[in-house]
Amino acid sequence: MEKIEKKRLEALRKAMAEHGIDCCIINSTDPHQSEIPPAHWRGREWLTGFKSENGTNGIAVVTKDHAYVWTDNRFFIQARQQLEGTGFEMMPLDGPEGVDLIEYVANMMPKDSAVAIDGMTFSSTEAEKMREAFEEAELNFVTDFPMFEYIWPERPSQPLNRLFIHDEEIVGETVDSKITRIIEEVEKEGADAILISALDDIAWATNLRTAGDVAFSPMFTSYLYLDKLGTRILFINEEKLTPDVKDFLNKYNIEVRGYDETLGFAESIPASTCVLIDPTLTSITIAEKIPTTLEGGKRVANLKSIKNENMLTHWRTAMEKDGVALVKLFKWIDDEFPKGNLTEMSIARKLRECRLADPDCVDESFAAIVGWNGHGAIVHYEPSDETDVPVTGQGLLLIDSGGQYLQGTTDITRTIALGGEPTKEQKHDFTLVLKGMIALARATFPKGTRGAQLDILARQFLWNEGKAYYHGTGHGVGFFINCHEGPVQIRMNEIPVALQPGMVMSDEPGLYIEDKYGIRCENMLAVELWKSNEFGDFYRFRNLTLFPFDRSLIEWEIITTEEREWLEEYNKEILERLSPLLSEEETEWLFSKCIMHNS
Amino acid sequence: MEKIEKKRLEALRKAMAEHGIDCCIINSTDPHQSEIPPAHWRGREWLTGFKSENGTNGIAVVTKDHAYVWTDNRFFIQARQQLEGTGFEMMPLDGPEGVDLIEYVANMMPKDSAVAIDGMTFSSTEAEKMREAFEEAELNFVTDFPMFEYIWPERPSQPLNRLFIHDEEIVGETVDSKITRIIEEVEKEGADAILISALDDIAWATNLRTAGDVAFSPMFTSYLYLDKLGTRILFINEEKLTPDVKDFLNKYNIEVRGYDETLGFAESIPASTCVLIDPTLTSITIAEKIPTTLEGGKRVANLKSIKNENMLTHWRTAMEKDGVALVKLFKWIDDEFPKGNLTEMSIARKLRECRLADPDCVDESFAAIVGWNGHGAIVHYEPSDETDVPVTGQGLLLIDSGGQYLQGTTDITRTIALGGEPTKEQKHDFTLVLKGMIALARATFPKGTRGAQLDILARQFLWNEGKAYYHGTGHGVGFFINCHEGPVQIRMNEIPVALQPGMVMSDEPGLYIEDKYGIRCENMLAVELWKSNEFGDFYRFRNLTLFPFDRSLIEWEIITTEEREWLEEYNKEILERLSPLLSEEETEWLFSKCIMHNS
Repeated sequence: MEKIEKKRLEALRKAMAEHGIDCCIINSTDPHQSEIPPAHWRGREWLTGFKSENGTNGIAVVTKDHAYVWTDNRFFIQARQQLEGTGFEMMPLDGPEGVDLIEYVANMMPKDSAVAIDGMTFSSTEAEKMREAFEEAELNFVTDFPMFEYIWPERPSQPLNRLFIHDEEIVGETVDSKITRIIEEVEKEGADAILISALDDIAWATNLRTAGDVAFSPMFTSYLYLDKLGTRILFINEEKLTPDVKDFLNKYNIEVRGYDETLGFAESIPASTCVLIDPTLTSITIAEKIPTTLEGGKRVANLKSIKNENMLTHWRTAMEKDGVALVKLFKWIDDEFPKGNLTEMSIARKLRECRLADPDCVDESFAAIVGWNGHGAIVHYEPSDETDVPVTGQGLLLIDSGGQYLQGTTDITRTIALGGEPTKEQKHDFTLVLKGMIALARATFPKGTRGAQLDILARQFLWNEGKAYYHGTGHGVGFFINCHEGPVQIRMNEIPVALQPGMVMSDEPGLYIEDKYGIRCENMLAVELWKSNEFGDFYRFRNLTLFPFDRSLIEWEIITTEEREWLEEYNKEILERLSPLLSEEETEWLFSKCIMHNS
Repeated sequence: MEKIEKKRLEALRKAMAEHGIDCCIINSTDPHQSEIPPAHWRGREWLTGFKSENGTNGIAVVTKDHAYVWTDNRFFIQARQQLEGTGFEMMPLDGPEGVDLIEYVANMMPKDSAVAIDGMTFSSTEAEKMREAFEEAELNFVTDFPMFEYIWPERPSQPLNRLFIHDEEIVGETVDSKITRIIEEVEKEGADAILISALDDIAWATNLRTAGDVAFSPMFTSYLYLDKLGTRILFINEEKLTPDVKDFLNKYNIEVRGYDETLGFAESIPASTCVLIDPTLTSITIAEKIPTTLEGGKRVANLKSIKNENMLTHWRTAMEKDGVALVKLFKWIDDEFPKGNLTEMSIARKLRECRLADPDCVDESFAAIVGWNGHGAIVHYEPSDETDVPVTGQGLLLIDSGGQYLQGTTDITRTIALGGEPTKEQKHDFTLVLKGMIALARATFPKGTRGAQLDILARQFLWNEGKAYYHGTGHGVGFFINCHEGPVQIRMNEIPVALQPGMVMSDEPGLYIEDKYGIRCENMLAVELWKSNEFGDFYRFRNLTLFPFDRSLIEWEIITTEEREWLEEYNKEILERLSPLLSEEETEWLFSKCIMHNS
């Protein structure tokens, strides 16, 4: 079977020959190192036909005779299937056969070969790593080969979605205040200016959003330049700006320039101006154009990670809206299940419909995971027409989803039993996971505590039985921006950043029994000050998420008094806050889910 | 009041003037960066009169007009007192007024000044940090100024204690096997040879020990050079070698050269031989003499940290011997307390006597901490004639101590109540600490888990009440070497080394109420494989220490069923293993301490 991708590969090789390039390395992201790039920057996917997680995973390497796509173990099977007949071969990024891409290229190419990248799509950090290896191998490293300009006639345009203002009443802080705080950080680093590449940082700093540039996240393609003398320039495609937004930018003295003018501007910055950049997020092309740079940490991301009380108040509203959507969904599942027509995809569609029924919900916050039995055990499973299965018989249904509300981003996982009494194992495993989730939610800890220290609280009950999950326990959640937000995480590996009041984290332990079922329980938590005394400041979590856990899956014999009290309090709050927003029938249904008559 | 130290300071200034030195920086350790240096290398203490923790803490800086000693916040008060009248001023190393020594010297000294150290007593890492700062400040950095050779006529000789062989039946591994494994590590790093400076690593590699070179640890002053061609040279003062030890070294083809020949040898190594060194433990003088070095990690320390089953079996014997010593001590305290004559020092002396009564106990493993009430709240308290107090009235007595047995090193802390029923607070706090100790002892965890992940298990019950201790929870323990052994620790800060079967750790949470009391419960634990399944390999701890906790301090209301069962099992094992080694009267006493009639 020969595929269209074979022709594309030929076209690329022709372009390479014309430009004297012997090997080219193609990334899967945009100039902002976005988790999910807009269609304009999905050239790697278009070229190779390998469609991983919204096209974000996989790096292609093409020479005259070879063509590879590197991907990680989650995608080995899928990549092999999708690459068949494209002329590309799969290469394992990790696992026992894992191959280091840079090392491989350095060994494969003869001395003096030209190895090229499109420097806009590789971060300065990544590209410098390549440069070092390739120079040692006496290869010629070219960073300005924009391959898709030559070979992709039907390339989608840069995103042109209109911006809107994120109500400052909701945000609780003006753009002036945010920029002032950013400049303070810039000066602390000893720089004069900052060029921000990260789209979530720009959306945060400008209180602006859009829909459609980046899937599941209301960020917009742009660069933001700020200096300590008051220069504020937003590099953005002007078609994205409504008169309201122009007025808004004007009010905050933010000058607008074209997105494509960024490079020229970068070059024109005087050498006397030291520009702070984050080398892991700034493309090598931009980084090299700026005469004087200082490589700095995640200063803006750190500011962004601390949410003010105003945001947290509005987040309560978002959580109520999300709770209502989930009541509608899970009640619908209860009503429909006996008819035998449910599938993972029909549930995923209904879920989206329930959330988007609220006008303040702009989008889902990520591609919903709806996994029935064995599919629930695939951690990154996302149902598609090809994988869809009927949700019938007895089993566990895992739904991990969220919404982008103007009042805050949500992320929640619930696992429910359908089709009769769950098995002893299902109940026992569910209860171990739930106990872990509660233990982390109830944690108290002194100032300075990092996620890796707390992580075991969520895992301990599994570990005590020789069971384990190997994903992170919690990630930061953005406020109507990215659902996965840095810099703090709660996971086994060390992230050297302490939890601070105002950070919002997920709490999502799980357990995955291959081919049988997956279990995950996830709530969102906000860090808050608990008490200060002679031993220091202590923090605790405030729970944000509002939806009950499936009582039929709880093995009450291993639930402690404290855990039962926590569940009772939790369900009481859910009923109190959601009932006023529900129909009588929905309230009744919710009441039946919240009552603890098994206890 | 003028002190003798003033004269010594004058002598030093004269020597500095004669050698054209404007500023000299004096360290408190030996050429092996030992935790406790032999008397020969305690020049800083002799010069300044500041006696901290066996003279190991404090760095002196002397110029024509100024003389300072930097120390940390534990010693501020003591240093100010002891430095009075010596001509030296105290400088804070940390705390809110903390002053960076290197920065201070760099700013204080005029351009082109000569700043000198004795390069034998500073590690390569430390000295390079100085060099960088001083060169930037345009100072002249001199690393070969052995100040004490000019000014310390009564300087003690290098240690001359005789070595003895650590029975290979106890150790369970021959010197050949150890050296073979070291050379494998050297080759893994890509080096040809290794120069070992760390005295504990040398003692481990050679199965040799001594008593007296270093307080509380049976290591001996020496260097060990090994290469992949079979060269094995021990640099050591020949007076330390008995005929037996000479034969033993000969058997393993280990050549002996004088300790003072090390430098000359280092210089003579051919440039084609790449020598692995640990820059944090190798003095700058040595490191600079070797033509080709590779700076490597703690390869030997890592090997040393994994104890074989043979050692663990013998460690059981050491633990029984230690348990017997503690029964004798605590029974004596019970007998003597009513008479009203006990003091912290008398208890510390009795403790030493009880341990050293066993011929296999070579020394205590550190200076025992015996703290009554308020003194127990000073974490690094060590009683002395100046601080001694009577142990009378009601209160808590904290004893942290250990022994150097041929069969293994011990480290145990017990806190007991004396003088009547403890208060509610004493019992409650003790029980929180004990619960934490038990939680860590009962932990199970997958392969790859690091100490910082487990640490919270020991702290959680305190944190839940807004209480905390700020020292580490656990350190590695050596096998008849250092009581504090790297590389693994269980503490809040990240140490990027995973726990592995065969590692022996302390488990010692505490709580310190200023001026009132200190509580610490400490057992030693060995990591062992628990089970392997589809989720991976899981480890657990095996308890080593044998001595009961003071039952009168337990608040049973907050002890769970699992904790009570753990305590019952523990006490049962103590009785079973110690009773055969005790008199009838002692057994009776131990039985009364082990029975759980309050439960």
